[in-house]
Amino acid sequence: MTTFVNLLELEALAKPRLPIAVFDYFAGGAHDEITLGANRHAYDAIALRPRVLVDVSHRDLSTTLLGATLAFPVLVAPMALQRMAHTDGELATARAVTSLKTLLTVSTLSSVTAEDIRAACALAPWFQIYVHQDRALTEAMLARVSACGYGALVLTVDTPVLGRRERDVRNTFQPPPGVAFANMMAGKGAATTGSSDKDSALAMYFAARHDASVTWKDLAWLRRVCPLPLVLKGVMRGDDAKRAADHGVDAVIVSNHGGRQLDTAVPTIRALPEVAEAAGSRMPVLVDGGVRRGTDVLKALALGARAVLVGRPVLWGLALDGEAGVARVLTTLRDELDIAMALCGCASVADIERDLVVT
Amino acid sequence: MTTFVNLLELEALAKPRLPIAVFDYFAGGAHDEITLGANRHAYDAIALRPRVLVDVSHRDLSTTLLGATLAFPVLVAPMALQRMAHTDGELATARAVTSLKTLLTVSTLSSVTAEDIRAACALAPWFQIYVHQDRALTEAMLARVSACGYGALVLTVDTPVLGRRERDVRNTFQPPPGVAFANMMAGKGAATTGSSDKDSALAMYFAARHDASVTWKDLAWLRRVCPLPLVLKGVMRGDDAKRAADHGVDAVIVSNHGGRQLDTAVPTIRALPEVAEAAGSRMPVLVDGGVRRGTDVLKALALGARAVLVGRPVLWGLALDGEAGVARVLTTLRDELDIAMALCGCASVADIERDLVVT
Amino acid sequence: MTTFVNLLELEALAKPRLPIAVFDYFAGGAHDEITLGANRHAYDAIALRPRVLVDVSHRDLSTTLLGATLAFPVLVAPMALQRMAHTDGELATARAVTSLKTLLTVSTLSSVTAEDIRAACALAPWFQIYVHQDRALTEAMLARVSACGYGALVLTVDTPVLGRRERDVRNTFQPPPGVAFANMMAGKGAATTGSSDKDSALAMYFAARHDASVTWKDLAWLRRVCPLPLVLKGVMRGDDAKRAADHGVDAVIVSNHGGRQLDTAVPTIRALPEVAEAAGSRMPVLVDGGVRRGTDVLKALALGARAVLVGRPVLWGLALDGEAGVARVLTTLRDELDIAMALCGCASVADIERDLVVT
Amino acid sequence: MTTFVNLLELEALAKPRLPIAVFDYFAGGAHDEITLGANRHAYDAIALRPRVLVDVSHRDLSTTLLGATLAFPVLVAPMALQRMAHTDGELATARAVTSLKTLLTVSTLSSVTAEDIRAACALAPWFQIYVHQDRALTEAMLARVSACGYGALVLTVDTPVLGRRERDVRNTFQPPPGVAFANMMAGKGAATTGSSDKDSALAMYFAARHDASVTWKDLAWLRRVCPLPLVLKGVMRGDDAKRAADHGVDAVIVSNHGGRQLDTAVPTIRALPEVAEAAGSRMPVLVDGGVRRGTDVLKALALGARAVLVGRPVLWGLALDGEAGVARVLTTLRDELDIAMALCGCASVADIERDLVVT
Repeated sequence: MTTFVNLLELEALAKPRLPIAVFDYFAGGAHDEITLGANRHAYDAIALRPRVLVDVSHRDLSTTLLGATLAFPVLVAPMALQRMAHTDGELATARAVTSLKTLLTVSTLSSVTAEDIRAACALAPWFQIYVHQDRALTEAMLARVSACGYGALVLTVDTPVLGRRERDVRNTFQPPPGVAFANMMAGKGAATTGSSDKDSALAMYFAARHDASVTWKDLAWLRRVCPLPLVLKGVMRGDDAKRAADHGVDAVIVSNHGGRQLDTAVPTIRALPEVAEAAGSRMPVLVDGGVRRGTDVLKALALGARAVLVGRPVLWGLALDGEAGVARVLTTLRDELDIAMALCGCASVADIERDLVVT
Repeated sequence: MTTFVNLLELEALAKPRLPIAVFDYFAGGAHDEITLGANRHAYDAIALRPRVLVDVSHRDLSTTLLGATLAFPVLVAPMALQRMAHTDGELATARAVTSLKTLLTVSTLSSVTAEDIRAACALAPWFQIYVHQDRALTEAMLARVSACGYGALVLTVDTPVLGRRERDVRNTFQPPPGVAFANMMAGKGAATTGSSDKDSALAMYFAARHDASVTWKDLAWLRRVCPLPLVLKGVMRGDDAKRAADHGVDAVIVSNHGGRQLDTAVPTIRALPEVAEAAGSRMPVLVDGGVRRGTDVLKALALGARAVLVGRPVLWGLALDGEAGVARVLTTLRDELDIAMALCGCASVADIERDLVVT
Repeated sequence: MTTFVNLLELEALAKPRLPIAVFDYFAGGAHDEITLGANRHAYDAIALRPRVLVDVSHRDLSTTLLGATLAFPVLVAPMALQRMAHTDGELATARAVTSLKTLLTVSTLSSVTAEDIRAACALAPWFQIYVHQDRALTEAMLARVSACGYGALVLTVDTPVLGRRERDVRNTFQPPPGVAFANMMAGKGAATTGSSDKDSALAMYFAARHDASVTWKDLAWLRRVCPLPLVLKGVMRGDDAKRAADHGVDAVIVSNHGGRQLDTAVPTIRALPEVAEAAGSRMPVLVDGGVRRGTDVLKALALGARAVLVGRPVLWGLALDGEAGVARVLTTLRDELDIAMALCGCASVADIERDLVVT
Repeated sequence: MTTFVNLLELEALAKPRLPIAVFDYFAGGAHDEITLGANRHAYDAIALRPRVLVDVSHRDLSTTLLGATLAFPVLVAPMALQRMAHTDGELATARAVTSLKTLLTVSTLSSVTAEDIRAACALAPWFQIYVHQDRALTEAMLARVSACGYGALVLTVDTPVLGRRERDVRNTFQPPPGVAFANMMAGKGAATTGSSDKDSALAMYFAARHDASVTWKDLAWLRRVCPLPLVLKGVMRGDDAKRAADHGVDAVIVSNHGGRQLDTAVPTIRALPEVAEAAGSRMPVLVDGGVRRGTDVLKALALGARAVLVGRPVLWGLALDGEAGVARVLTTLRDELDIAMALCGCASVADIERDLVVT
């Protein structure tokens, strides 16, 4: 097994294990990758003001989220086609998440079926969806998701069209043979979609099928066809967060899609405070993008997040060592958070207050 | 044809296609090229706050400008001597602009005559002028411009004297054989002007002929000898914008001449808000300098511009592939704007509001 | 003897003299070493506003601290295992400090016994402690410290758990043969503690013995078992400083443990003003971390510190030339402070006022 | 003759012409040379807001200073031992300054006598002095200066002790054979002063002779023994500027000695506004440090300076080509200012107003 000390060194370790087009698909962002980089660097620019002489001999990292209890406030973000990273794909990720007693979010574009992933999880995972122009297709998917016991529906709202990821354009990225969108109906999967020498397969898939007309009004339809709690992923503004709460949304995720959609979008950790303030106590707020250190998690919680989602490092761990690699990624982040809390004088996540950080 | 994915890579692609002195003339700026670089970087420092769950299934990028309708809010900036980039010169640029249904601004110092360029355009182009010490010469030029159907007059106001472009000084830049200022009268063109081994030909031309005494009072004379709408290019301050509106100017362009005149002049996108505020609804404001991404166009519109002008990338596209190269440059920028609008929740340019950006 | 002109070049000079694992242990910080670097760079970002035409023909650099008079306001910070740098270890440091008439702070984890170090000092040194889970062990240590004439007790409060120093993790750092925690009882010293191929020896030692439950209430116990003045090291916030004063603490040291504990903790010189303001005249405030120049000392004093502590440069001086090396480090810093005071118009440390600096 | 296009490239051009110790003496600054660099970069961080449509067909760059009229607002700063740069030394500089109709300031430590330099100038130069512990020596010097027709006395107030210039320490800098402090009495010149293998000759000279006790009260003595207008060089604070005006000082120069004295002193262009505000209309304010571009001069004037002083570029010009080199340096700066004024809409220095710059 490849050893690693922290999550920041993972990308370089994983790179030689993957075809370059796959690596680029996972690692890359939109356009100049300014938001991709800024998501990360924004954390380093936030300083901590540790509190001393607090009894931190026992730390409790657990948190609750839509009724579930997580051992620590870190979820795995929805990421497509994980079998490109490791033959076990989403199943390995699900098992690692389960072993660490935290929560998985599953991508609509997973390379293992939603049912199989669900079966690998103890805690009910969340299912991420896009709305297709063919609403019947979406409804069918939602029916499956409800049926097999997912815990929440995560509607991605930052992707009315697909961001231009230039690495994928240059690579004319396509999933490698044998890896497909497992949740698509027969004859509608990736294998039959959008091969081209001019653009990425994903871009063509989106252009052909995705519905860019979805608005707040469609949330009522979603709730009607799917009884699960509804989470919006990609909310970056206080006014949209307020609107979400007004529409009875159960949680929002501050996300810019890991810098893969709108380049120069504000870094998520900088958007978090206004979203958290707008949400108030009406719904929990989560954040993703750039989380690599336990101190990042602590900063996000101090700035109003209930939990964070981690993405790419999970893929790198998966590429390096399957389930064990993912487990080590999550363990590392958990243990770093544990130390960070101790060093900040926080015995539980409830102790992580706003005045621990200077922005 | 040379392929390219974005406008930022064009300069490096075009460089080997051009004599170094021509490349330097096009690419360079005044003195230390601080404003040249800052124009660009200032855009990257502006962050976007995307709005979600808006119906953006159909986007309308069109705008109107002095009565004309443009398919998207990007004009081509006035640039001299385009036959240095490609044998078709300004004609190729004009045809590309026409095919994209947007608007061309033509330089006084064009290497094809104003009449021939006009004939290549569908939408009436704008004509950029400097005022010569010999006012009769200027009046003759204005008469030609009015006669052949230009849509507006663009008076450059940031060039009472020519900025010191050290690349041109070092190269003792002169237009290559066969490329001349086509609009000059016989015997007064570039070929007979200012060859020297000590300074650039353009610098000598300016020193000899240009009128540095032009003031607001001269606008009345301009209006009298030329009935076209009058646009001022190079307005960088709110007080000057107000003065322009008070003098009945029809539009202003926030411009520092692409960093070619006064080095360390404030980046245009930072000057834009005060100019737009001063202009209010009295006249439209445009901006040029550093626009390379669709998000840049969106940011400019959010900060008060009606449209932007793009310069150097057009020259690089021209150098690479003539009309087709220019068309691809404009198409790329248009398509990026289209995606940026979708991702920001804007179905039309009217939806691009101030609160989409954080400066 | 290796010559050096300033303290900044010492690290590179000392590096080849030390085993890499020892060098890394001394030089390194927690995680990404952001705080380690920021401690230093924060000083460079503070500008000085010199005052002119003051009589500075005679400068008095002396200060008083808990009743002692120091020739200049620079103490040596507590640092473990100095025999790793030079065979004379803490004794060389103590002799150099004594020759310069300033004050030593001694680490609990010294490689020479507290009694022997004390004997090498003229001015009563301060003794730094951690609280062990085995309180009897701590009490025994405190009894020894009181008995042999230390001047104050320095309780480190920024280390409820040990920060993760990745260099040490990678090196599976252990003290070299023959260097041990000299103050530990027989059979409980480093030689018998925590050898492992997975983590640093120090980390294992801490995890096994350290008490992370110490709170403000335990200060009363400390005072009862040890009559020495009590100093808290690692106070980074105004509210904690106020609490310290309320608990009768005699002095606080603004410290983030040289960037070795909580990475991205705010640089000490930036935390100093709020701590100094909270302390007011109730107790003196000291600061460590990143002090390398005489101007740094002056800036710290201007921002409210009574004195500073210098750490790593002392180790590098020790590695280069034992006692003489340490003496030269302290002399250099003293002489730079002397010049800085003259150039700022300060004849004594009392003249170093807040308005000399711009932050 | 070595050609050059701007003042920024001069240092690299001059370096091979000079012994390294001489180059370092001229080029270097105190300690880490942070102020040396910041003086320069602070100008680049100031942006210009050009005004348009002003008649700038004729520009008047002249200014007045203590009754003298300068062709443009740039003086040559006092610099020691110019014969190290060129055999003609200060005489070449004086002739160039005279040919350009501006003003020279002469260093006490010149390598040509004050009398000979005076004779080479049309406009009465200013004489810079330090106060010696031996006041009779100073009085004798002042008597010579008054007698031979200098225009003002410039008292350097930023050098109660000499700043530590580490390049000179490393080089154990000494003037080369044949270059001496020409104004010193026989037997007290550089040749007999302070040779050492441990420190620079200048540092030893200062330590032995300079008077660090000079205060505001001594200005009365200075005025009594020397009737010339009195200028203070090295004032960096508004309160000291006010004090200067209260003591009847005739002008102040905002200076940090080119970054050679107190490292991390605030850049001069940032100190200028508070000094100018404090001076009001009571006395003119000048500034030196980092001026390399015509736009720098314009910025300094916009921020309240009557004129600037330029230092090192003059030495480089001198090293490259003697009088002609210095003349070209001054001509370049003058011509750049001329263009900058035109491009900012300023026909005279009086038009250079505060709102032309954004800091």
